[in-house]
Amino acid sequence: MKETEELMDLLVRRGFLWPAFEIYGGVAGFYDYGPLGVALKQKIIEQWRRIYVLEEGAIEIDSPTVTPEEVLRASGHVEHFLDLMVECRKCGGAFKVTDLLMEVAGVNVEGKDRREISEIIRKINVRCPDCGGELGEVTEFNTMFRTAIGPGSRRVAYLRPETAQGIFINFRRLFRLARGRLPLPVVQIGRGYRNEISPRQGVMRLREFTMAEAEVFFDPADPRHPRFQEVRGERLRLWTASSQQEGGPAIEITAGEAAERGIVCNQLMAYYLVLTKRFLSRIGIPQEAVRFREQTPAQRAHYSAETWDAEVLTKRFGWVEVAGIAYRTDYDLSRHMKHSGENLTAFVEDRKESIVCHVIEPSYGIDRPLYCLLEHSYVSDGGRRYLRLPREMAPVEVAVFPLVRRDGLAEKAREIWAMLRGRGFLAEYDESGSIGRRYARADEIGTPYCVTVDYRTLEDGTVTIRERDSTAQRRAEVSSLPEVLRGLISGSISFSSLSEHEGGEERKDEEGEQ
Amino acid sequence: MKETEELMDLLVRRGFLWPAFEIYGGVAGFYDYGPLGVALKQKIIEQWRRIYVLEEGAIEIDSPTVTPEEVLRASGHVEHFLDLMVECRKCGGAFKVTDLLMEVAGVNVEGKDRREISEIIRKINVRCPDCGGELGEVTEFNTMFRTAIGPGSRRVAYLRPETAQGIFINFRRLFRLARGRLPLPVVQIGRGYRNEISPRQGVMRLREFTMAEAEVFFDPADPRHPRFQEVRGERLRLWTASSQQEGGPAIEITAGEAAERGIVCNQLMAYYLVLTKRFLSRIGIPQEAVRFREQTPAQRAHYSAETWDAEVLTKRFGWVEVAGIAYRTDYDLSRHMKHSGENLTAFVEDRKESIVCHVIEPSYGIDRPLYCLLEHSYVSDGGRRYLRLPREMAPVEVAVFPLVRRDGLAEKAREIWAMLRGRGFLAEYDESGSIGRRYARADEIGTPYCVTVDYRTLEDGTVTIRERDSTAQRRAEVSSLPEVLRGLISGSISFSSLSEHEGGEERKDEEGEQ
Repeated sequence: MKETEELMDLLVRRGFLWPAFEIYGGVAGFYDYGPLGVALKQKIIEQWRRIYVLEEGAIEIDSPTVTPEEVLRASGHVEHFLDLMVECRKCGGAFKVTDLLMEVAGVNVEGKDRREISEIIRKINVRCPDCGGELGEVTEFNTMFRTAIGPGSRRVAYLRPETAQGIFINFRRLFRLARGRLPLPVVQIGRGYRNEISPRQGVMRLREFTMAEAEVFFDPADPRHPRFQEVRGERLRLWTASSQQEGGPAIEITAGEAAERGIVCNQLMAYYLVLTKRFLSRIGIPQEAVRFREQTPAQRAHYSAETWDAEVLTKRFGWVEVAGIAYRTDYDLSRHMKHSGENLTAFVEDRKESIVCHVIEPSYGIDRPLYCLLEHSYVSDGGRRYLRLPREMAPVEVAVFPLVRRDGLAEKAREIWAMLRGRGFLAEYDESGSIGRRYARADEIGTPYCVTVDYRTLEDGTVTIRERDSTAQRRAEVSSLPEVLRGLISGSISFSSLSEHEGGEERKDEEGEQ
Repeated sequence: MKETEELMDLLVRRGFLWPAFEIYGGVAGFYDYGPLGVALKQKIIEQWRRIYVLEEGAIEIDSPTVTPEEVLRASGHVEHFLDLMVECRKCGGAFKVTDLLMEVAGVNVEGKDRREISEIIRKINVRCPDCGGELGEVTEFNTMFRTAIGPGSRRVAYLRPETAQGIFINFRRLFRLARGRLPLPVVQIGRGYRNEISPRQGVMRLREFTMAEAEVFFDPADPRHPRFQEVRGERLRLWTASSQQEGGPAIEITAGEAAERGIVCNQLMAYYLVLTKRFLSRIGIPQEAVRFREQTPAQRAHYSAETWDAEVLTKRFGWVEVAGIAYRTDYDLSRHMKHSGENLTAFVEDRKESIVCHVIEPSYGIDRPLYCLLEHSYVSDGGRRYLRLPREMAPVEVAVFPLVRRDGLAEKAREIWAMLRGRGFLAEYDESGSIGRRYARADEIGTPYCVTVDYRTLEDGTVTIRERDSTAQRRAEVSSLPEVLRGLISGSISFSSLSEHEGGEERKDEEGEQ
């Protein structure tokens, strides 16, 4: 089995995630998160919130996913949120043409119009990849899920394609709550939807996903961040649109240079690129696997004047977009002012005038970074397979085992397990199979520490702590376990500072007791 | 203004919640949560998770909201998730008949069929409440939001009316992950949808809401909870269906008695009624305002053999259902086995045989308890208005003020604010207006403690802490603030144990400095 298939098998088997609606044959683009996936997803969201809400002081809102048509007509999504599609005349299968032509013929038709693409399909005689049938005309398909509010179909609505609109339409209220602060970051975390024509890339192309978006409102005459000084020296790996078009490489420059030399549109853009890098780094994605790629004009969404995609290199999917930082200008607020007739301007104290704010939007998927993190954490070297997740990100922080089930060891281990859960640890208990197998099971899901209760525990109240990455073992007192584990997980205590394990290095995983 | 209107005004003005899509005229049944509402909602969810995931050891999953028709056909929702509706022949307005007849004529038609109701409408000549027009025939309306997956309308789907189905269809996988444990609680927290015909009760009748559901799978031959002993003496206020029909009162009995005397269907039901009571109590809803009302057979959902609604008494809406604990029998698993052809049985080790599990479902709304909590917390006595939220539930835990802005006090206060945020406190900073007004603003949103930086702070490093409920003031050292505040909030430190404030009782809210 290839390594990425091995990983996917592990993720499904151990309950991180699996294709949804399996017993009914599954539906492409939908996944369930199991217990470990839920815990990991929450931890990723927590890190995001820590950066945006706690450190940036953003205000967070939570608006409905069902969105009336007026809103999405104003935002341009009814008109522009389209994919080009082609259907097979024989089997009726539907395909997104950009994907189809890339997959079956290696042709990039991004930015080309319907007629040009129809011609290419005829010219190189592209057939249905499923049945070999003839393909019909290229048509447009709006990739929002459509529904209706209340009885009848008069009140059309869509499932939101982004959480952003829920923020824009509330701008006046939010600006007042924030007492006129600019730049003003407002965030929302929640479901987003994209009714993909025929998604074929597993977890990478979801029809329903979790997003975390920030809309940073600012005065276009003053696109500065109050703490830019703190990040100006941070290095960014940028691949500009023009360099892509010329076949050139990505460059490495500081955030300060990127802003000053006009490589990015303004200082706020540079600031949020740094924040994005920081977020990916904090959840555990290695810096070397991250780059920022500027979208070419043909790739940009209708509302954007400049977009930088944060991309992560994966083994399975190549470079994967995990976030997009877009300069939405005053597009959304202006459109909503026009369509609603309401005033969404901001009064700027210093200038004694009202302006329409511009917006920098750092928009993150949560599902994709989660997959990227798992892939980058997966280690499979000969006999041993484990997830080298950052300790704080592990969905199970500590596993508790009795060396054997008899002689009161199981009872003692359960007691310790309950104590740790009571102290807020994500803890698991496992008593089945040899201790070596239990270590292997804990490794597989990235559990950083295993606590084993043995006969010595009954005598002197100490247990073995075993570290995932090194498989080394040390002893600690049960009474100090919460503090020791908390310190190990946060990094304030080093594993080697704990007491040596009696049996030393012999006491390694392989032995099978019980 | 009436007290509940005053409260609603406060909630909207201060950013707890407000009607969604306001600039487009609003759409009934949809609300936005603002920053304070988001924080409070998260705290309610945290309490729920603490009970179900940490203490009960439930496993949590997260499945899509978009659900293909097969699933909801099998679950009975396509056939049964209906409301009876009547439309006005003149203005086209649509009404849910049960609500309409109760509101305009005080007639309860629950459980009656379409013909009977049409006759009642004709007999008592009910007209359209909006325009006085004649009403048409009574029809059925499926209250699921309908959509389609992918292009065309072949693949019909609905937005889930409950999170439960995502759990049932994964039973086999979940049972394996839990290694055959029974009873097995599986939980899910997320959005649910109900396409109400014409909702008129504000925050109480939402079309999109947050739910927290537990599906507890058990062997019908052994409907016991391993820790029932711990709760058997807890008192429950139960209003049985038969007592309701006879015009009788609710009774107060212990969980043990309720199970043994057959007042509830089994021990698990009694156990989860206690857990529901505990959840409502932990978030801060007073016990006296809670009762459990058994649904009459006509009120029960199609899948339920017995349902107890947890109801909270409110000033604005009377008794409000905030949770329903249903005995779903083997209905869902059996239906999914039949419709999918897959085996969803559980092998019971002790009995050496496979069974179809039965299910007790404690299902909670999150939005309604949130409103109930706010209403019960609202105190408006003469001059002072405040939210007496439990300290741990407050969306802002501490507010930091400089007594005046000058002389470095503002800088010092900002420094303390940043320090507290860094330590994970939900903290706010406020420097505008008199100190009395700032206390009043903090009271209004239920902030339990205000920290004021004054001239003495610069001399001896102490600040004033002011307690919301008593408005009393004490002093504490800045260096010990995180520990002191953590202790005050969790209840491990009493406010009166802190050093007396120099100015003593004179130092109360009313004065307006600056």
